[in-house]
Amino acid sequence: MENIKACIVGATGYAGVELLRLISGHPDIKLAMATDRKNAGAEVSDIYPGLKGVCDIVLTLPDPDEIAATSDVAFLAVPHTASLALTPALIARGVTVIDLSADYRIEDASVYEAWYGTPHTSVDVLADAVYGLPELNRAALVSLAVRHAEGKAVLVAAPGCYPTATALAAIPALKAGFAISDLVISDAISGVSGAGRTPSARTHYCHANENLEAYGVAKHRHTPEIEQTLSQAAGHAMNVIFTPHLAPLARGLLATVYIEVSDGVTAESAYEAYASFYADEPLVAMLPLGEMPQTASVAGTARAQVGIALDSRHRRMLIASAAIDNLGKGSASQALQCANLVLGLDETAGLSFPAPVL
Amino acid sequence: MENIKACIVGATGYAGVELLRLISGHPDIKLAMATDRKNAGAEVSDIYPGLKGVCDIVLTLPDPDEIAATSDVAFLAVPHTASLALTPALIARGVTVIDLSADYRIEDASVYEAWYGTPHTSVDVLADAVYGLPELNRAALVSLAVRHAEGKAVLVAAPGCYPTATALAAIPALKAGFAISDLVISDAISGVSGAGRTPSARTHYCHANENLEAYGVAKHRHTPEIEQTLSQAAGHAMNVIFTPHLAPLARGLLATVYIEVSDGVTAESAYEAYASFYADEPLVAMLPLGEMPQTASVAGTARAQVGIALDSRHRRMLIASAAIDNLGKGSASQALQCANLVLGLDETAGLSFPAPVL
Amino acid sequence: MENIKACIVGATGYAGVELLRLISGHPDIKLAMATDRKNAGAEVSDIYPGLKGVCDIVLTLPDPDEIAATSDVAFLAVPHTASLALTPALIARGVTVIDLSADYRIEDASVYEAWYGTPHTSVDVLADAVYGLPELNRAALVSLAVRHAEGKAVLVAAPGCYPTATALAAIPALKAGFAISDLVISDAISGVSGAGRTPSARTHYCHANENLEAYGVAKHRHTPEIEQTLSQAAGHAMNVIFTPHLAPLARGLLATVYIEVSDGVTAESAYEAYASFYADEPLVAMLPLGEMPQTASVAGTARAQVGIALDSRHRRMLIASAAIDNLGKGSASQALQCANLVLGLDETAGLSFPAPVL
Amino acid sequence: MENIKACIVGATGYAGVELLRLISGHPDIKLAMATDRKNAGAEVSDIYPGLKGVCDIVLTLPDPDEIAATSDVAFLAVPHTASLALTPALIARGVTVIDLSADYRIEDASVYEAWYGTPHTSVDVLADAVYGLPELNRAALVSLAVRHAEGKAVLVAAPGCYPTATALAAIPALKAGFAISDLVISDAISGVSGAGRTPSARTHYCHANENLEAYGVAKHRHTPEIEQTLSQAAGHAMNVIFTPHLAPLARGLLATVYIEVSDGVTAESAYEAYASFYADEPLVAMLPLGEMPQTASVAGTARAQVGIALDSRHRRMLIASAAIDNLGKGSASQALQCANLVLGLDETAGLSFPAPVL
Repeated sequence: MENIKACIVGATGYAGVELLRLISGHPDIKLAMATDRKNAGAEVSDIYPGLKGVCDIVLTLPDPDEIAATSDVAFLAVPHTASLALTPALIARGVTVIDLSADYRIEDASVYEAWYGTPHTSVDVLADAVYGLPELNRAALVSLAVRHAEGKAVLVAAPGCYPTATALAAIPALKAGFAISDLVISDAISGVSGAGRTPSARTHYCHANENLEAYGVAKHRHTPEIEQTLSQAAGHAMNVIFTPHLAPLARGLLATVYIEVSDGVTAESAYEAYASFYADEPLVAMLPLGEMPQTASVAGTARAQVGIALDSRHRRMLIASAAIDNLGKGSASQALQCANLVLGLDETAGLSFPAPVL
Repeated sequence: MENIKACIVGATGYAGVELLRLISGHPDIKLAMATDRKNAGAEVSDIYPGLKGVCDIVLTLPDPDEIAATSDVAFLAVPHTASLALTPALIARGVTVIDLSADYRIEDASVYEAWYGTPHTSVDVLADAVYGLPELNRAALVSLAVRHAEGKAVLVAAPGCYPTATALAAIPALKAGFAISDLVISDAISGVSGAGRTPSARTHYCHANENLEAYGVAKHRHTPEIEQTLSQAAGHAMNVIFTPHLAPLARGLLATVYIEVSDGVTAESAYEAYASFYADEPLVAMLPLGEMPQTASVAGTARAQVGIALDSRHRRMLIASAAIDNLGKGSASQALQCANLVLGLDETAGLSFPAPVL
Repeated sequence: MENIKACIVGATGYAGVELLRLISGHPDIKLAMATDRKNAGAEVSDIYPGLKGVCDIVLTLPDPDEIAATSDVAFLAVPHTASLALTPALIARGVTVIDLSADYRIEDASVYEAWYGTPHTSVDVLADAVYGLPELNRAALVSLAVRHAEGKAVLVAAPGCYPTATALAAIPALKAGFAISDLVISDAISGVSGAGRTPSARTHYCHANENLEAYGVAKHRHTPEIEQTLSQAAGHAMNVIFTPHLAPLARGLLATVYIEVSDGVTAESAYEAYASFYADEPLVAMLPLGEMPQTASVAGTARAQVGIALDSRHRRMLIASAAIDNLGKGSASQALQCANLVLGLDETAGLSFPAPVL
Repeated sequence: MENIKACIVGATGYAGVELLRLISGHPDIKLAMATDRKNAGAEVSDIYPGLKGVCDIVLTLPDPDEIAATSDVAFLAVPHTASLALTPALIARGVTVIDLSADYRIEDASVYEAWYGTPHTSVDVLADAVYGLPELNRAALVSLAVRHAEGKAVLVAAPGCYPTATALAAIPALKAGFAISDLVISDAISGVSGAGRTPSARTHYCHANENLEAYGVAKHRHTPEIEQTLSQAAGHAMNVIFTPHLAPLARGLLATVYIEVSDGVTAESAYEAYASFYADEPLVAMLPLGEMPQTASVAGTARAQVGIALDSRHRRMLIASAAIDNLGKGSASQALQCANLVLGLDETAGLSFPAPVL
């Protein structure tokens, strides 16, 4: 098969450069263009010296015509609102878009506007976007492949990191109808790369090191995205209480989810539901009952690991924990997994590499 | 005032050596003896070279007669069951005991036996123990001071690290009667020093570094201690779902607690209850509404910081977060705070030192 | 004794806030004023929440008249050139200055100008400055105390972090005349706080974490300061090859120094020279022969530890290693040690506190 | 081409499991067997849960007959002396050996015996071993390929981590005849994984974290290996003063090397010698003059990066710094690079994967 040509927009942010790393090793996709507004003209290996001799592509400005001239697919690793401007231009030029920003994740534009505090200027395109969580939405993603094969540009909204981990921990229980209420609590911990590459007081080594803190409590923008996904899984409206924390590591995200379950649910039956749900998933491993996942097991990979426990001493509370790499399954590798599906490639092409075990 | 003489039993474990540091700087307590079964005969600064010239006391074996001959008070920084053996011998010899182990924390010996899997062999002594959380139990601790002043040996059971942080986050809400159910969720994250000084696969740098994991889910031994404290605060039986996590830092513990509250509770009224509860506490700082605590703010200190938020979008969930140093307010400094109260000293004597801000 | 009143100029940088912490616990010095150009009007605890309830002083602008009106001594924790402007104004107003910047460390203004690339505008004041390394220069510092007691404002130039550690490792050998050449190699490793509090690409957690790198090789500005100190110790001109490295920790600096020594020098005789040199030093501990120092032993303290080894297999190379806290003995606590000497206080007043052993 | 079958002996140590990761992704080598004395019978993913679904091979005992029955090549990731026992048995059974231990690195058995304190019981096999540093020794490694292709078992002694980094920093200067003396100083810093997987006081998170220390000063066992390599490069006997340090990171090793050079050497001419030496090396990148390497640039990869500077202010000192992953180019990936050469494969087969940039 001829190589598919890809452009990464925003190639020097953490998600962008992770995409660049993954695409560099992809058997069927070739990096045709990498853009970066601030560093246009430089080689990406000037910014990331570890890429010297591995990927020395020259960064350019994100011009839609240039992207359309060189690329079949564009990955947008940009902040929210930047994608609102660029995606319609790319779709109009026939470029399939995998958007890593938040701009097309929320189906209801008014919810997006309320949480992001900015108008959604691209509602028509939004209507055709597919939310790129393969474990929940694979059929819709595969249906995009048909349209893409017919030459139509399609749009995938790749999920956020916290929504991905929360969803992987909660979906099997919700699908199984175990929950006795409309409430899920997601208490999550992220590494510092989740805060992005721009230096700030919070990302200073001496602040983040030897420190733990909750942030964005009761107001983090991933909240409506989580609720949308949990509601879809449950088949009815679900609410989430979501508390993100920052811990001193670069990569890794752990979501611990609390779901009160009905009387008949046992640890074994819950486990069976999870194991069965993930049995055929190529990138999610269900750990044996009694084991909980570690983020180090998935750091640098495209994989997730999930474990559960049931506290049945008084009420019946299911505690499910999902570990991902926030830049992998929480961002870049999941975007590439979606691209594989949409481009008609093997879902795990370029994603099954073995990663460091420490 | 003449100095009070103290013995630390188990002086080379992390809690023990932290006590040794604190007592070295205490104005009224003098370290008379420090014991360690494995390193008896060595100087403590042979094991901790940072103590050279600061504290070079020779470690001895923990003989009750020797302790009684040299010390007015003994701090037991020992594993559970070790205190069951030693505490009665010390009390019988007139030595007041501040016990950092779990052996005398649980009022109901049968609950202790169920969770710790070992018989409680010292039920009589247990009946007179006071649980050493000053913010909840100061009156009882002060009443011990009367007995100690009369020459009677008394016993304080210093709290565990997770129970302390959970209690500080939850007590004001429970005291105020805000909770609409008997359930509290405590999702907590600890630094690695909480796992103790004995080398193990879990405490190996290359395992703990760049890693996050839940452990002991639905079965951690701090569970009944937490429930006892929350029940005392609420005035009726409370249950906890408690999930501890390990993160890559040495010192620090953050507990994020979820309590569903009744309709009339607002962020402001909840804040008022917390601020009022902690207004006169010398070692707990309530952060302004909207701020959440960081463990780095209290690392190396005897202090705690607490912050709250209310998620009132659907249900009314109070989210309260408490930051402590697991070796400070979560262990050694709280033991010393209790000792100050019992010995009739200023509660913060030796504990108000300024600590590194990074 | 009445308290001495002090001002910290630049109180929110890392050195400044460390001074603030130390002065908060000092028995004889009271913090009268703390300035910060960017945060004037705020409480220092707004910037460092760990200080809430410990030190809530309101930050002001660094006005010389205000400083003179409130303070007997000013600590300048400012970047180079800022002190050139402020110090003469303070001296003229009778305020004794302990300068933590590089502006008055180099005796030869032309050397300063060559390395710092800026004119030295305060040569008269420079002529009276004393370099504040007590282990080398105690007599000169004590002589300042006489002048200060007579009501004259004096100036101490507190040393840089790398020069301090290199000096502590090399001085005893140079004083003893062991070196057979005029060359010392200093290979040093620093924690990230040495790079200051301003966020940058280099201090981003995700850059500094899990990373080691040399920087400023063959051109670091501490080079002439090191050479000046080594030359003073040797009694003749010495050169240094100085290579600083950055490692993933917040606090701590280790200098490993290589000095080729003459034939008669043995490990034992070298050790004897070091042990004797440091025998009466209150804040430097010489480790037993065969032990090398760790930065964790001195982190958070005012102390240094030194160890040596001799490689005599072919040539005779003395390898000496000194561990300091770059913000302690490498900056703030050494400034305070100098202040104690100049103010006629006990040299270790406020500096002998026990620090965390992990 | 049919796959080559490989056995990893000692598959759960850090070097062993890194080999397992690399071989799992190798296009031409298939893992036939993985042994581990302590965990025989378990799946390797029971010990490293991140390997679940990636590599679940069952660990066996290292029986030479079994290895010979299943494998064309054996990688010995074992402690020194263990290879002395096993290698002759494997060679005798026709199995080519890539030995990661120190047992066959030192050509002179008496030097080995002096530094390792144990008799060398396999001197005949030692005589035929080739030291596996391709940048220095590629011709000899390629000559082994001829013998292996003829069906003869051959032996490669893969280098140690410190010797590799020191060699990469020093060889081009020594080959070029720049050094004016027989002395090289190597001051190196390693991550904690270099200390191995066995838990110990030194590898405890709370010891290694926020700490820097020199260790094994003037007596580390890598010293004679470094001297052998430097002497080979220089063409005459060279001595090294070697000081290893431990820093708080898991993976990464930086060697900074000092070589006094002759008068005619300039920064530019030295740079030219280095750039030319590494121009065709597939796994070593020479950084532009003025840039120094970071270990994060090579962590998780098979690559090295080298940078140099010249301090010509007084004497002419060349300062060269090499960054490697101690488990990659410093151990497992270099062993595999050697195996590729000996097995007649492309030298970088399975080693050119892009690695995480943070």
